[in-house]
Amino acid sequence: MISVKEAKNIILNTTQDFGVEEVPFIKSVGRILKEEIFADRDFPPFNRVSMDGICIDFNPFKNGQRTFKIEGIQAAGSEQIRLQNSENCMEVMTGAVLPENANTVIRYEDVTINNGIATINIDAINKSQNIHQKGKDGKVGDVLISENKIISAAEIGVLATVGKSMVKVAKQPKVMIISTGDELVGVDENPLAHQIRRSNVFTLVSLLESLKIASETAHLTDDKAILKQKIKTFIENYDVLLFSGAVSKGKFDFLPEVFEELGVEKLFHKVAQRPGKPFFYGKTANCNLFGFPGNPISTFVNCLAYFYPWYYKSVGLEIEEETAILTKDVNFKPNLEYFLQVKLSDKFGHTLATPITGNGSGDLASLVHADAFIHLPNDKTEFKTGENYPIIRYR
Amino acid sequence: MISVKEAKNIILNTTQDFGVEEVPFIKSVGRILKEEIFADRDFPPFNRVSMDGICIDFNPFKNGQRTFKIEGIQAAGSEQIRLQNSENCMEVMTGAVLPENANTVIRYEDVTINNGIATINIDAINKSQNIHQKGKDGKVGDVLISENKIISAAEIGVLATVGKSMVKVAKQPKVMIISTGDELVGVDENPLAHQIRRSNVFTLVSLLESLKIASETAHLTDDKAILKQKIKTFIENYDVLLFSGAVSKGKFDFLPEVFEELGVEKLFHKVAQRPGKPFFYGKTANCNLFGFPGNPISTFVNCLAYFYPWYYKSVGLEIEEETAILTKDVNFKPNLEYFLQVKLSDKFGHTLATPITGNGSGDLASLVHADAFIHLPNDKTEFKTGENYPIIRYR
Repeated sequence: MISVKEAKNIILNTTQDFGVEEVPFIKSVGRILKEEIFADRDFPPFNRVSMDGICIDFNPFKNGQRTFKIEGIQAAGSEQIRLQNSENCMEVMTGAVLPENANTVIRYEDVTINNGIATINIDAINKSQNIHQKGKDGKVGDVLISENKIISAAEIGVLATVGKSMVKVAKQPKVMIISTGDELVGVDENPLAHQIRRSNVFTLVSLLESLKIASETAHLTDDKAILKQKIKTFIENYDVLLFSGAVSKGKFDFLPEVFEELGVEKLFHKVAQRPGKPFFYGKTANCNLFGFPGNPISTFVNCLAYFYPWYYKSVGLEIEEETAILTKDVNFKPNLEYFLQVKLSDKFGHTLATPITGNGSGDLASLVHADAFIHLPNDKTEFKTGENYPIIRYR
Repeated sequence: MISVKEAKNIILNTTQDFGVEEVPFIKSVGRILKEEIFADRDFPPFNRVSMDGICIDFNPFKNGQRTFKIEGIQAAGSEQIRLQNSENCMEVMTGAVLPENANTVIRYEDVTINNGIATINIDAINKSQNIHQKGKDGKVGDVLISENKIISAAEIGVLATVGKSMVKVAKQPKVMIISTGDELVGVDENPLAHQIRRSNVFTLVSLLESLKIASETAHLTDDKAILKQKIKTFIENYDVLLFSGAVSKGKFDFLPEVFEELGVEKLFHKVAQRPGKPFFYGKTANCNLFGFPGNPISTFVNCLAYFYPWYYKSVGLEIEEETAILTKDVNFKPNLEYFLQVKLSDKFGHTLATPITGNGSGDLASLVHADAFIHLPNDKTEFKTGENYPIIRYR
């Protein structure tokens, strides 16, 4: 049995490269940028008026002039016009090009306008004020967004600004999510006394959806021949297979055997953790297989703890570890690393983790009351209030 | 000019009820649950075997018996069978119904099996161990998920388990996002020297997408008659209009006038904040109008600071305030509340906020380097390292 760290290292050393595709920029939120985004012009592209008001040449103002005849209006979206007489002014609108020969903008709030004459009512005026200088935020050719960044609304604005209507992003893996177990029936069905409804595949679909990965699902019965035939096809046609169930010691836990017969290289089976211990991980030349144990919380936490980091590294995304502070003492005796459900809250900028008492790895309902798992190491058995440990958020 | 708090109060007192709709559960992630979810049966629905191994009646074991003849196998998904002789055992698989007359499960790791006889190799066995008792996690009729909860992967698992293939969620508002400004051209176009590309509407589309709100966009030229005619139609056909630009003091900032002529009740215009001061908010009987200032960061922060809370309250979602700790001193003189871009990081469970120096409200590129806005009050001008203030995350 290996440690969580060893398991994670093996997983991170067997990532894939899914390649790159171009998508419309407005569809790219949540995807991983696979090109550098350059400024196509200076940013802003002209000396941009940043307040509605009037513009002047600062010299006459400095020499005491306070009334300026209005020559005209420079609207946003109009070609640059010219201040003909340096003792006059021009009305200017936010977003407009600063008129030629003007160098200072005074906002309407500080000006009185009567009969085409603007009178400046304050003395505290600085040359160049209220002008967003050409190139101040970036020069043509500057890198505005680096490769491998996850695209959010902020990046969407920049992509639009520089005219990147199509953008290169990491392709997503082709994923099949497979449930096994003859006790499972469909969500629409009425289970008999000894049956339960399928739920883990849908949890996995949702967890992948939050990575913007569309996935497919299948249910296979606990029949070795069928399992072998179907999984062979899946291996040939998908980048990743996620399994829920049939990896433990049960008589009908055929997956490890089937994997072996299909030539899957077993990289590990079992991690010294709770929940999620009987986790199987293997690969073929083109496909990675994650065999999650079938208990709902085992599947859930292993997807977060192993598939997520595998995906992040595959697409080039670096994720910083986050930690939280225990609000209650926790005792945990088994010599296993412990992923404990916690409810997160904030107090004075501290992230607090309050353990949620569940009833073991079958208790899916307890996940509803938590937000994250806190990862407690196996080198001690008592974890004290105020100590901090890594967390994995799921909301 | 009103304070951020006053503005927010006005906004939260003018929310809407968009109603309720039923959607397939697998499409409900990110939506707000509008019904209570009950356990349709006990949870687990039977005494569920939670380890692969054998089951026995505890009495003979207590009396010293260590070898048990195997009567058969109880597989997951099979109807409950019965242990005929209490001195025998049955093989049982994880997820199976516990056989009648058995009350204790011993995992395979602690058993040797030879010629149909199982020998238990340890003495530390507790009655009822490795059985997930019927009803332990919940009784039929228990509320598993409360109304008004946002649906995540955890809730999806529960919905599947109880057979809620269709689920009631808050309907989303019908939103039109409108840009104005004759300086704007399309993302695909090559702007002339005095033009820039449209970007704010796409930023807003993305910010709404992260709330699972699909929105439409329109661009209107700075022509009062056209604005009036189009906005009249939008008011009649949408729940919410989000505007970017044309709400300040410019000669072509027609929106406030147009709103008045269309009978929009002005609730406020201008908030004592930077960026985003000239924010207009109004409503008609059926439509709420958010007039965000046209600078990219103003539009961005006002959507987060005002539209988000308005939406959350409208759909019944309670959001807890989050705070972070400044890692640098900040000086800010104007008598305005300050929304400052910050990069967040975690250290020992503390959320640290490092200010990102931008070039004012036009500097969209600076948003790329930040994760959140920190909200600094206007009752002082010096904000010290180590102090903590509310934040609004956008990634």
